[in-house]
Amino acid sequence: MTLKLYFGPGACSFVPHTMLEAAGAPFEAVLVKLHKQENLGPEYRTLNPRGQVPVLVDGDEVITQILAIVSYLDDKFPQCNFLPRAALARTRALETLAWMNNTVHPTFTHVFMPYRFSDDAAAQAAIKRYNAALYRPMLEEIEAMAQQAAQQGRAFLGGANFGPIDAYALTLLRWGGFAGHDPAGFPALWAHVQRLAELPPVARAMARERLQLNVYQPPAA
Amino acid sequence: MTLKLYFGPGACSFVPHTMLEAAGAPFEAVLVKLHKQENLGPEYRTLNPRGQVPVLVDGDEVITQILAIVSYLDDKFPQCNFLPRAALARTRALETLAWMNNTVHPTFTHVFMPYRFSDDAAAQAAIKRYNAALYRPMLEEIEAMAQQAAQQGRAFLGGANFGPIDAYALTLLRWGGFAGHDPAGFPALWAHVQRLAELPPVARAMARERLQLNVYQPPAA
Ligand SMILES: N[C@@H](CCC(=O)N[C@@H](CS)C(=O)NCC(=O)O)C(=O)O
Ligand SMILES: N[C@@H](CCC(=O)N[C@@H](CS)C(=O)NCC(=O)O)C(=O)O
Repeated sequence: MTLKLYFGPGACSFVPHTMLEAAGAPFEAVLVKLHKQENLGPEYRTLNPRGQVPVLVDGDEVITQILAIVSYLDDKFPQCNFLPRAALARTRALETLAWMNNTVHPTFTHVFMPYRFSDDAAAQAAIKRYNAALYRPMLEEIEAMAQQAAQQGRAFLGGANFGPIDAYALTLLRWGGFAGHDPAGFPALWAHVQRLAELPPVARAMARERLQLNVYQPPAA
Repeated sequence: MTLKLYFGPGACSFVPHTMLEAAGAPFEAVLVKLHKQENLGPEYRTLNPRGQVPVLVDGDEVITQILAIVSYLDDKFPQCNFLPRAALARTRALETLAWMNNTVHPTFTHVFMPYRFSDDAAAQAAIKRYNAALYRPMLEEIEAMAQQAAQQGRAFLGGANFGPIDAYALTLLRWGGFAGHDPAGFPALWAHVQRLAELPPVARAMARERLQLNVYQPPAA
């Protein structure tokens, strides 16, 4: 019974994708072409009626929502210590993950898919602009987390081990490039993310998704 | 060392508020006047730089984010069984909570505070309108959960015990009234929420927040 992950290249499904690679368990990675709206077609909707990636399938179980998948993989692969065990440290990890998931990630969605929030073209342009600006202080908060980890000599944002906070941070900084934010403007985070990209499990997930780490394009002069 | 909860009347802080009442532990409930923007003032920002409720304070620990607070309270009061213990059931509970927290709740925020997503007045009106419509199928999803619980003879949405999914469902249906959705249009959910409101811990939290369960106003004829 192989695990199956439905992912979109460069999408938030990168978080569980790297966790599965880190766990070293066999799994099947199923590419969903989001730009061709495969996720909105009837076949995919039978799997996930909400039409989104990631979806994790384990035998008969179909699990959606990054936070639920993260918790499931943490239970399934306890040896990876994806999340801290101690109650308070675990709470802190969840606090960061929940914020990334309910605030930073949706702010980028406003930049990338403004039509999800209004059917009015002028409003979409206004939403895109406003949220691209909102995104910067959020990356600065993650930059502060990376600075603190560096000061405390922690190799990873969530503690001693690679985990979902690191993978989410990489994804969110990468998305920042699409929102007009040069990753070099967040030096501790950018250094952290470049180191992450060299870890074999992360490198394997990036290769499968054919990801370039830096997608920022400076505005034409 | 008393627990302290910072809450806004009728806000999402209702979720941990009911859990604290259900736990029966002494706690101090600190009202934050969101309509007077007390949450955005310098004093509150020292507590929570992101300027939001809920905040739970336990001794020296300051915890934000509903999902982190829920997990913390579940650890602190295991006898309440706020979340299921078994890994898969727990994953399912988190899946629903994460979706409520990252999708349904923010959709309502677009209706209630559209200026958080654009500084353009016309765009704000478009955002409000569009998201009020998006909110209905989300309430229908929660209605389906309530129907299923009723069919399976479960008294609560998350299992055998009152928990955060119930409290969130009550909050989200209540907010629906402000978005123009009559709770009576979601009969299983409305019946469930009315029963919840009679539970002593929920009733105590509602009384402290001075909440009316049904805030729907039919459009003038
Ligand atoms: N709340 C979901 C969000 C998932 C999500 O935003 N998925 C995006 C990719 S990052 C997606 O599938 N977008 C395609 C679409 O909405 O059409 C979670 O936490 O898993
Ligand atoms: N992501 C936060 C969201 C908290 C939130 O949305 N709080 C709202 C009340 S429901 C708030 O404080 N709003 C006041 C404001 O934004 O000014 C969580 O899950 O705890």
